[in-house]
Amino acid sequence: MNCELIAVGTELLLGEVANLDAQILSQGLSELGINVFHHTVVGDNPARLRQVLEIARKRADLIITTGGLGPTTDDLTKETVADVFGLPLEMNEEQLARLKQRMGPGMTLNNEKQAMLPRGCTVLVNDWGTAPGCAFCADGCHVIMLPGPPRECAPLFKHRAIPYLEGLHDGVISSTYLKIFGIGESSMETMLLPLMEQLQDVTIAPYAKTGECEVRITARRETREAAAEACAPVAAQIRSILGDYVYGTDVASLEEVVVRGLCARGLTLALAESCTGGLVAKRITDVSGASGCFAYGCVTYANEAKQRLLGVSADTLEKHGAVSEQTALEMARGVRALAGSNIGVSVTGVAGPNPSEGKAVGLVYVAISHDGGERVLQIPRRHSPDRERVRHSAASHALDLVRREVLLK
Amino acid sequence: MNCELIAVGTELLLGEVANLDAQILSQGLSELGINVFHHTVVGDNPARLRQVLEIARKRADLIITTGGLGPTTDDLTKETVADVFGLPLEMNEEQLARLKQRMGPGMTLNNEKQAMLPRGCTVLVNDWGTAPGCAFCADGCHVIMLPGPPRECAPLFKHRAIPYLEGLHDGVISSTYLKIFGIGESSMETMLLPLMEQLQDVTIAPYAKTGECEVRITARRETREAAAEACAPVAAQIRSILGDYVYGTDVASLEEVVVRGLCARGLTLALAESCTGGLVAKRITDVSGASGCFAYGCVTYANEAKQRLLGVSADTLEKHGAVSEQTALEMARGVRALAGSNIGVSVTGVAGPNPSEGKAVGLVYVAISHDGGERVLQIPRRHSPDRERVRHSAASHALDLVRREVLLK
Repeated sequence: MNCELIAVGTELLLGEVANLDAQILSQGLSELGINVFHHTVVGDNPARLRQVLEIARKRADLIITTGGLGPTTDDLTKETVADVFGLPLEMNEEQLARLKQRMGPGMTLNNEKQAMLPRGCTVLVNDWGTAPGCAFCADGCHVIMLPGPPRECAPLFKHRAIPYLEGLHDGVISSTYLKIFGIGESSMETMLLPLMEQLQDVTIAPYAKTGECEVRITARRETREAAAEACAPVAAQIRSILGDYVYGTDVASLEEVVVRGLCARGLTLALAESCTGGLVAKRITDVSGASGCFAYGCVTYANEAKQRLLGVSADTLEKHGAVSEQTALEMARGVRALAGSNIGVSVTGVAGPNPSEGKAVGLVYVAISHDGGERVLQIPRRHSPDRERVRHSAASHALDLVRREVLLK
Repeated sequence: MNCELIAVGTELLLGEVANLDAQILSQGLSELGINVFHHTVVGDNPARLRQVLEIARKRADLIITTGGLGPTTDDLTKETVADVFGLPLEMNEEQLARLKQRMGPGMTLNNEKQAMLPRGCTVLVNDWGTAPGCAFCADGCHVIMLPGPPRECAPLFKHRAIPYLEGLHDGVISSTYLKIFGIGESSMETMLLPLMEQLQDVTIAPYAKTGECEVRITARRETREAAAEACAPVAAQIRSILGDYVYGTDVASLEEVVVRGLCARGLTLALAESCTGGLVAKRITDVSGASGCFAYGCVTYANEAKQRLLGVSADTLEKHGAVSEQTALEMARGVRALAGSNIGVSVTGVAGPNPSEGKAVGLVYVAISHDGGERVLQIPRRHSPDRERVRHSAASHALDLVRREVLLK
């Protein structure tokens, strides 16, 4: 099945927003084994939308539109799509009642338009906003219409459109994601190549993400359970090939693994950050429930702060500088003592754009101090370090140090 | 002039990356007054790229491609575009020499392909990567080819393609951006509407950004100076209409305004964060040069940390809770005393997803303590607060409090 995604919205053509719907849908369709050959973006203009639809129906057998389902006069996707495929729009009483209930007595007349749907379509009920989506098949072409805002489009796609698409196929898909830190995409691919070539009806797809990698394992079987069962041994094989580089399976992030792991063990973490300036704490507290393991963080951007708050010695700062193994270790020890926590972690380095203490941009040390001992490491320096990437990478290495020194021990 | 953007890359169709180039280019083209009517994304497939180009040349008089200019065999944009427009590719000796110099003796043969360019084209020299861009006009259609990675595409567009496009027109464009915090897009638009309707040859475009707004003012005149002069009085008018909601003109962010403002006044800031968990410190230290005004930050996620580190009284926590005006004020005073800084700022609230102390998700207090006095405010609660938005909005209000209480006084 070949798919074209058509996003409708002048705000996309003005560059006010990026076409994130296309990315979200493409990922999901790729997991389903559906080829996406074109993305198209067109404005809120019925004549141009019509032309785009005419082109798409010739080259795709699945068209998914995003946007233009709202109540205002420039929301014209349903009208135009229905017209191109020769279907009348009809008031769907069930959806109208739903709308009225959702919007209350303040609902204006133009909102009723959202309950007008192509005759005979499958309604994709929208629990995340007002405009329902819909799906139909006409002239051998499947068409799905979804609302534009990603916070509505994403769940409607996942919970309504994917089950609809699975119903068109024999069998269902299951995917497993392995998350990887500490190895580059090309090295990882080289390690996985023999396995990738040997597999028949389970696919492996490696991806590079910001500062880390991901491997997707996908299988199609008669039931979801059978598909999941087919993925499991492949996931185990990849884990044995990549070893500790794999930090989790079907988890959101390194910080989530660290927070959940520490909470499960009843351990507490304190942070002392210099060049990351609060980014490690921010990422830890992105995870809801972080308060179970995290109570104290210090951003000690100045030497004086490192001395006064964390007890780093003037002698160490004088002899080795703020960006040094010694300072990193004293920061980790200091914040652990200050917080009375099980674990202290520190980051100190040169984020740039200018060198500091005569040390190069990208030089970063992370250290840990805990019941099981101490460790400090210099993180690998990138070829062309920029401030944002240095900081992100430093924070990831600090989180990974907790994983390796505490959770894997 | 009507433009179509064509992004070439299978990674886009797999959803591995979003089409950020299209957003960047669309913004720039919109400033130039060039209409963008279509974005198209196609994979690294010459047959489908050819079809897409044939469609585009019929409906656009400017085509800009992004991606597929690299050294590998699946980089086929130049070959396909040149073929569609009937131009031979020729080795550009100057670009070849440049490539050799840039890549050194390790340059492999396949890299030379990057110096092959359509006969007679204008070379867009790439100072940010290896593959040059190019521009030509054939059969009345202007074509520009740019590399795909946004860190190359964006500067090449700005510094090479825009001047090229300006050369095709009479006159040049100048834009000014006003950054706005504390008012919604629709209220802002209502306030600006009379001015927008009254202006003739200067345009005003309001935009909603994450948690804030922006107004773009654009004019086309014979020289850049004349265009900038035409924008200036309009910017002044908008400033007088929107007042203190405008936090800056042609600046990157609220945090940049705060850092630059504090550094210029020789003032120091210390932060005490609870629900934002380091996000304010992270945003402050996103600005290079933040060390000039920022030395100390504390993430006190637990009540114990608020007491021990910041000296918040047990009595206050007991009586009013951690999420209260009183605690916010004591945190701001406490961190100011701890750091010996001119200004102490604090954030405490319920980020969610679960309520805390029986208080609703989205309830947040920010406080400031400084030489000029103290202030605490409860930030407006959103209709459907989610963790990320609550945290981002809380951090922005904390930064804005510094601006209003210190920089505007």
